[in-house]
Amino acid sequence: MHTGTGKATHAQTRRHNNRLVLKMVYDQGPISRAEIARSTNLTATTVSTVISKLIADGLVEEIGSLATERGKPPTLVSLVKDARHVIALDLSRHEFQGAILNLRGEIQQRQSLPVAGSTGDEAVTLVLTLIESLLPHAHSPLLGIGIGAPGIIDLNHNLIRRAANLGWENLALGEKLTEHFGLQAQIVNDNQAVLLAEFLFGNYKHTADMVVVRIGNGIGAGVLANGQLLHGNGTGAGEIGHVVVVKDGEPCRCGGHGCLETVASSRAIVKQAQAIARQNHTSSLHALAPAPEAITIQTVIQAFQAGDPEIQALVAKVAYYLGLMIAHLLAVVGMPRVLLCGSVTGFGEPLLAAIRHEVAQLTLVGRINEPHIAMASLATDLSNQIMMGAAATLLAHELGLFL
Amino acid sequence: MHTGTGKATHAQTRRHNNRLVLKMVYDQGPISRAEIARSTNLTATTVSTVISKLIADGLVEEIGSLATERGKPPTLVSLVKDARHVIALDLSRHEFQGAILNLRGEIQQRQSLPVAGSTGDEAVTLVLTLIESLLPHAHSPLLGIGIGAPGIIDLNHNLIRRAANLGWENLALGEKLTEHFGLQAQIVNDNQAVLLAEFLFGNYKHTADMVVVRIGNGIGAGVLANGQLLHGNGTGAGEIGHVVVVKDGEPCRCGGHGCLETVASSRAIVKQAQAIARQNHTSSLHALAPAPEAITIQTVIQAFQAGDPEIQALVAKVAYYLGLMIAHLLAVVGMPRVLLCGSVTGFGEPLLAAIRHEVAQLTLVGRINEPHIAMASLATDLSNQIMMGAAATLLAHELGLFL
Repeated sequence: MHTGTGKATHAQTRRHNNRLVLKMVYDQGPISRAEIARSTNLTATTVSTVISKLIADGLVEEIGSLATERGKPPTLVSLVKDARHVIALDLSRHEFQGAILNLRGEIQQRQSLPVAGSTGDEAVTLVLTLIESLLPHAHSPLLGIGIGAPGIIDLNHNLIRRAANLGWENLALGEKLTEHFGLQAQIVNDNQAVLLAEFLFGNYKHTADMVVVRIGNGIGAGVLANGQLLHGNGTGAGEIGHVVVVKDGEPCRCGGHGCLETVASSRAIVKQAQAIARQNHTSSLHALAPAPEAITIQTVIQAFQAGDPEIQALVAKVAYYLGLMIAHLLAVVGMPRVLLCGSVTGFGEPLLAAIRHEVAQLTLVGRINEPHIAMASLATDLSNQIMMGAAATLLAHELGLFL
Repeated sequence: MHTGTGKATHAQTRRHNNRLVLKMVYDQGPISRAEIARSTNLTATTVSTVISKLIADGLVEEIGSLATERGKPPTLVSLVKDARHVIALDLSRHEFQGAILNLRGEIQQRQSLPVAGSTGDEAVTLVLTLIESLLPHAHSPLLGIGIGAPGIIDLNHNLIRRAANLGWENLALGEKLTEHFGLQAQIVNDNQAVLLAEFLFGNYKHTADMVVVRIGNGIGAGVLANGQLLHGNGTGAGEIGHVVVVKDGEPCRCGGHGCLETVASSRAIVKQAQAIARQNHTSSLHALAPAPEAITIQTVIQAFQAGDPEIQALVAKVAYYLGLMIAHLLAVVGMPRVLLCGSVTGFGEPLLAAIRHEVAQLTLVGRINEPHIAMASLATDLSNQIMMGAAATLLAHELGLFL
């Protein structure tokens, strides 16, 4: 259902056709002009005109022909994946990450810059510095900048409405970057970026209905429904980490108490493991870390894998709360494909199995649909995936690959 | 973001233009042809051709002209709201409800039929009987049948995947009705119908982002995001009544334990009030009902309004659980407009205020956005609203009014 649409002008039609043909080459290439015409319902002449323009622009190339049984074999055209590059940033971590990617989301160059507690204008300056350090490494014309940012993003207004950790409120970062670098810039929520990376580059390419849940230092979700990103117009869609799941629970960095992040984020898990280490002098954690303060999420994962019973119980509790949240999420959106990412997924398949069990216990939708709860396909390096998703957003806007 | 679209054929273009012009007349009429051309970017000739066809079909009429300062005053065209009628059903209650509605969703005639425990084919026969009883009252050509049905609906396949109370599983009711009556038939989930009624006929006309939550015998939600119904492709989107909110709680009719419906549905509230009446011989309930078994949701609402402290505490608990669920819902979809309907909303503004308070306590998104939690605008008779929404779905399909 869409709420009304006007008839296209000629310029809009031309732009639409260009995007349509490029999308066909991107998704289906190598492909013949005739096949593009068949699939798009465009005339052969229109397709040829558009392809000639794309070849002139260097975005598409002819790559020889396909052997056929009779007649002149059709020439195939293919995407030139390095015809343009994109700068993409992940601003969701203690280190800002930046990279140059090609049109297939392949990372060409990567840089990082520690945030070291910078906030406000200082943090914006860091973003500029990071981009400047990447610019000399771009060996193809740059299409623009994609930014995966934490917090509440207004996708329509290209605005960071609220990123508490960075002290940003109603920051028009896209506009700022465009002014400074003369490049298009698009902002997307970091968790939603993970989703878009799956959709354009991952194993779940073109899966129109899926959910990504990130469980790391923070917890957040991205939802794709009918191929549409549920971005909430800057109202905080996907901010599932800050729903209270423990009444009068631990204080949360959001100002609330007992939020999901206070029991299931990597930060919360580490804190609970440290308490275990302090209380139990025979805990297996002591062999893995020199002192309770030195315990990291990796330490806890090791203790879990070694079978430490207290840590097993801790992870079971984490699985319960994550299962509860995913149960609520699925009851709202109904879709059965849930992809997990973030440091807490380091507990691996046992955690996933426990979450699956909880979801099936906790919701009818979960029982009926047997939801597929799996790891995000690109998340072996989450920062890479966020940058790929940020690049995907930019590609969507500039080339119409899916937005 | 949409996942690819082909170029339109001429027939598709014509159909699209027809729908576009009709939608303009529907939404903006009385309106001049020139204004339609300006708003749609269609040529004046195309608009005139389409309007002539719509006038010939009886859907649109000329209604005189608008006085202008200079030049020939343009003739205005307007929708003929009784040009077509629609049969709409609400199958979500103990009595199946049916009505004939016009193009503005105004109810012309209403019939009902007690279900009396019928399930399976017997219940299907009741549906046929109900429609047959309505047919003689249709005084305009019928566009088709819209059905608001409980349970999990596959909108794309026009299928009732699962309506437990009626014993229906994978029932192609739309197809069955089309075969039987030679009329188009469209099925939509009952709660989603409430949402669509608001969108096409209610106070929240054209509000592209909103949530409807129905709290009656059952609890369910409908979500409209960017003007798109989140229908979940038959996976049970909006089945929020069957998420466990009380660990090891009361058994639920879905087979689970401690679902939201076991604490916050009208059924659950009545059950708890009955227990109060049985335990407390000075309860104000005794003055309102001859025996605990005679207590209904209306009795409980009366006791609440009279200030009964035990019932006040009961409603506070209900508000907590509803607030918790809405908090989870808003954290996923982020949108701030929530409309409530169903018998439990009979507790009125105090319940709404308590829910608002809980949502603000229970989620960051709730604190940031100050969600508008209000009554659905048409829900003084919920069955009417469901039938209006079912009619809206049919109108969307047949006339392209918004789908």
